[in-house]
Amino acid sequence: MFNTIGIITKPNDPNSDKKASELSNLLEQKSVTIVRGGQIGEQADLIIVVGGDGSLLNTARNFVDKKIPILGINLGHLGFLADVPATKMQDIVTEVLNGNFTKEARHLLSCQIEQDGKVLGQYLALNDAVAHRTGTLKMLEFDLSIDGKFVSNQRADGLIITTPTGSTAYALSSGGPIMHPGVNAIGVVSICPHTMSHRPLLVPGESEIVVHIKESDEGATVNFDGQTSVPISAGQDIYVRQHKSSIHLLHPQNYDYFEIIRSKLHWGAKL
Amino acid sequence: MFNTIGIITKPNDPNSDKKASELSNLLEQKSVTIVRGGQIGEQADLIIVVGGDGSLLNTARNFVDKKIPILGINLGHLGFLADVPATKMQDIVTEVLNGNFTKEARHLLSCQIEQDGKVLGQYLALNDAVAHRTGTLKMLEFDLSIDGKFVSNQRADGLIITTPTGSTAYALSSGGPIMHPGVNAIGVVSICPHTMSHRPLLVPGESEIVVHIKESDEGATVNFDGQTSVPISAGQDIYVRQHKSSIHLLHPQNYDYFEIIRSKLHWGAKL
Amino acid sequence: MFNTIGIITKPNDPNSDKKASELSNLLEQKSVTIVRGGQIGEQADLIIVVGGDGSLLNTARNFVDKKIPILGINLGHLGFLADVPATKMQDIVTEVLNGNFTKEARHLLSCQIEQDGKVLGQYLALNDAVAHRTGTLKMLEFDLSIDGKFVSNQRADGLIITTPTGSTAYALSSGGPIMHPGVNAIGVVSICPHTMSHRPLLVPGESEIVVHIKESDEGATVNFDGQTSVPISAGQDIYVRQHKSSIHLLHPQNYDYFEIIRSKLHWGAKL
Amino acid sequence: MFNTIGIITKPNDPNSDKKASELSNLLEQKSVTIVRGGQIGEQADLIIVVGGDGSLLNTARNFVDKKIPILGINLGHLGFLADVPATKMQDIVTEVLNGNFTKEARHLLSCQIEQDGKVLGQYLALNDAVAHRTGTLKMLEFDLSIDGKFVSNQRADGLIITTPTGSTAYALSSGGPIMHPGVNAIGVVSICPHTMSHRPLLVPGESEIVVHIKESDEGATVNFDGQTSVPISAGQDIYVRQHKSSIHLLHPQNYDYFEIIRSKLHWGAKL
Repeated sequence: MFNTIGIITKPNDPNSDKKASELSNLLEQKSVTIVRGGQIGEQADLIIVVGGDGSLLNTARNFVDKKIPILGINLGHLGFLADVPATKMQDIVTEVLNGNFTKEARHLLSCQIEQDGKVLGQYLALNDAVAHRTGTLKMLEFDLSIDGKFVSNQRADGLIITTPTGSTAYALSSGGPIMHPGVNAIGVVSICPHTMSHRPLLVPGESEIVVHIKESDEGATVNFDGQTSVPISAGQDIYVRQHKSSIHLLHPQNYDYFEIIRSKLHWGAKL
Repeated sequence: MFNTIGIITKPNDPNSDKKASELSNLLEQKSVTIVRGGQIGEQADLIIVVGGDGSLLNTARNFVDKKIPILGINLGHLGFLADVPATKMQDIVTEVLNGNFTKEARHLLSCQIEQDGKVLGQYLALNDAVAHRTGTLKMLEFDLSIDGKFVSNQRADGLIITTPTGSTAYALSSGGPIMHPGVNAIGVVSICPHTMSHRPLLVPGESEIVVHIKESDEGATVNFDGQTSVPISAGQDIYVRQHKSSIHLLHPQNYDYFEIIRSKLHWGAKL
Repeated sequence: MFNTIGIITKPNDPNSDKKASELSNLLEQKSVTIVRGGQIGEQADLIIVVGGDGSLLNTARNFVDKKIPILGINLGHLGFLADVPATKMQDIVTEVLNGNFTKEARHLLSCQIEQDGKVLGQYLALNDAVAHRTGTLKMLEFDLSIDGKFVSNQRADGLIITTPTGSTAYALSSGGPIMHPGVNAIGVVSICPHTMSHRPLLVPGESEIVVHIKESDEGATVNFDGQTSVPISAGQDIYVRQHKSSIHLLHPQNYDYFEIIRSKLHWGAKL
Repeated sequence: MFNTIGIITKPNDPNSDKKASELSNLLEQKSVTIVRGGQIGEQADLIIVVGGDGSLLNTARNFVDKKIPILGINLGHLGFLADVPATKMQDIVTEVLNGNFTKEARHLLSCQIEQDGKVLGQYLALNDAVAHRTGTLKMLEFDLSIDGKFVSNQRADGLIITTPTGSTAYALSSGGPIMHPGVNAIGVVSICPHTMSHRPLLVPGESEIVVHIKESDEGATVNFDGQTSVPISAGQDIYVRQHKSSIHLLHPQNYDYFEIIRSKLHWGAKL
């Protein structure tokens, strides 16, 4: 099924290195070719990330256009994305090599920062793109438009534009809903909005969202997946769309999205 | 464009009758055939509702399978659905007859109440299906499943299953997000949940949602669009899916969903 | 310290009866006089409730004006109010008899329903007084006034007026804050308000709150501590003030309010 | 009634200067002595702030220990604190000089930043003390204790400690309740908490609140009334108590707290 597998580890994490070496041994026994670094994008027909959700987010952004499926081994607590516990790595990787897995597409966001029509930078996000003030004394003011139509002028600490995948990350802390990964939509969630009437907004996956920064006295940034941060200033625009290609996550065959949600969000806990 | 138009008025509302008669005069001048009552479903190629969002919800459920487009004249405040103000009826209806309008599909929910596999009743909803306790001293307990998978056991005042159209109705009062009508999703929003970790949940439009009532000491009902109410009791199941056919709303040509949202939700209001 | 103790059990609960009989044996060994039923109010200098939070709420309302301290033995999960686990009853009751306990006052609400200035009924509540629609298709409309000043006109499923004690009960499910029992305030929390700008409101403990019911097409009730329910109709007023006397809860000496909150609300649970 | 009045203007605001000069003329006609700058604290028996809520917050912190009442003239929109519209300045100041006004005490917070028991700085706040991460990629981790008891360990964007006065400021944007100024309580509101079970918490006004910063990878600040900002780092503690003296606000005689709330929060706005 998979003949050439790329292994990606978490930088400076001996535990990740150790588990990756255990994985290499397993793959060699199965006569799979192992590639690392620059070769992965060219040769691998599967990527295995040995880390956590953070490593998987990073890998997703780096390799999305190569259309190589990704499997995530989790070194810590069960992740939303990296859902193979390290203790079950041997069994589940063997199953995956035997073709027993669930494959699932996840959209990314493609983000472009522009000023006066000039492109300043392009970025990807699997979870979210977040515009946020950096100073602590002033709010951010921005205009939100969707598909060329003005939606609202807002003053807030920031604005989260999230995929369904990111709906259980920062957007959830800001009052956003949980979006099943199968929903073709983009979420727009204000952070501490200064007006009382704003609510999380869901728009079709095909929408183009534009955030025009009007004021940010003490500076602002846009960050992507909580991993990459770019300064942004008044007069600039953030354009956000679904990226043209998706990533494909592999899960154990008995994968159950709601079981992960229940476990991570403690839905069993009663008052 | 439209040769036979069905007119639906708001029962026992002289204002609606008066406006409908004004509408009839206009349509007769345009040589359009007017039908009412039972004939509408058989002959009309357009339905004009003279009332408000409530009348339009009712019309939508009654005629969805006839696939006749619907235009809503609003006698009161601007509606989310009936968005032609009575004062502009003459102009906008004339425009619509000239082919100048925006047409938009909206999904309905198809709901079935079952007990031990036996169907007790079938209902439609354009906004929402809401299971709610009727007594005031006890909560409702239910199990929620989606596409055959258990999601959660909940104790709450009730549960709202909403279309994007209904997201600005009862679901909004219960903390649900605003869903653009173009989003192909169903919202599941708990009403006063007894656990602190529940959040509004969005699932793909193709999902089958099942609510299994476990306990309802003092009785419970399911109601549809806030207009039809059916008692439900422990042991019964509510099955909810998107209905196979959609309604088609006609809007004035310059229709702007976000403008209606801004106006209805007072998004301009600053602290 | 305590010479005559009243024991109150949970009706029709063999487990409560069994534990109460165990308690009687213990008290007899300590030469304490035990009283039950009507004698409690006249003779007891301590009441021990063997049940749960529900039994304690009921006892509090019944005996508040007798100013007898109350200790709650909990037969089930740890309660917010009945905080002596059944398994530790022997030890903690012994400690209490030795004078080792924490004593804490809790305010009740005194509620009066009036029509045209005529009193229709008077009720007490340790947790909350809740006005709620009973029909499932319409909202309740009411005017809220505080200390004779108009606060707001609201359409909602209902309104919760809560003590700090009740802030962890129904009010919490409706989005209210947690109020430490030492805060001298009354909370006013709307249930599914139809406007987006309402927020939970805290007023001084000395305030008089008046809810004037304007419309309740399908009926409404006021209920007290989720245990007593009274029908209410348009034109009637609910007056709510702090009751003139407080109850005094006894707790184990190492009582820690925040530990109970953490345990009941699962504050340790991380995403 | 008031013989010596201090006038405080908004720096670099010609509109404030102009209005202050108009105020000076009025006061001179009434034979009131006018003082400015350093003399205010020594000599004034009333301070009039010509600016907005921001100027009044600043004045309150500067003069609270002088116990001089404060009247706020508002140059812009109606304020929560500066509630005399500039257009009514002449009439209302005249009324105040005639002894026709409402006087109201408002608590401030006294905040101390410590490290290893050593005091690093002391600050006052009329609205709120806010600990907030400054970097945009990481959360703040802190332990919250109240009156020497551990309350919770939290990961969040920040934490707001608010007076009732501040409850309609930043705390409201973060989901906090509205606290009537007569409530003797302090509010503790998490900003985008990483756990789902945190809720705004109200503690008695006499409480001592301690926030122990555990981690702040990219830096954090504490800011006071959104006007003064101080860096804070891991290992430091923020101690917050009610300040020993209160300010006294003068209002027009027909002052109505709820009318201001309704106007500022748009409570009349219906869906």
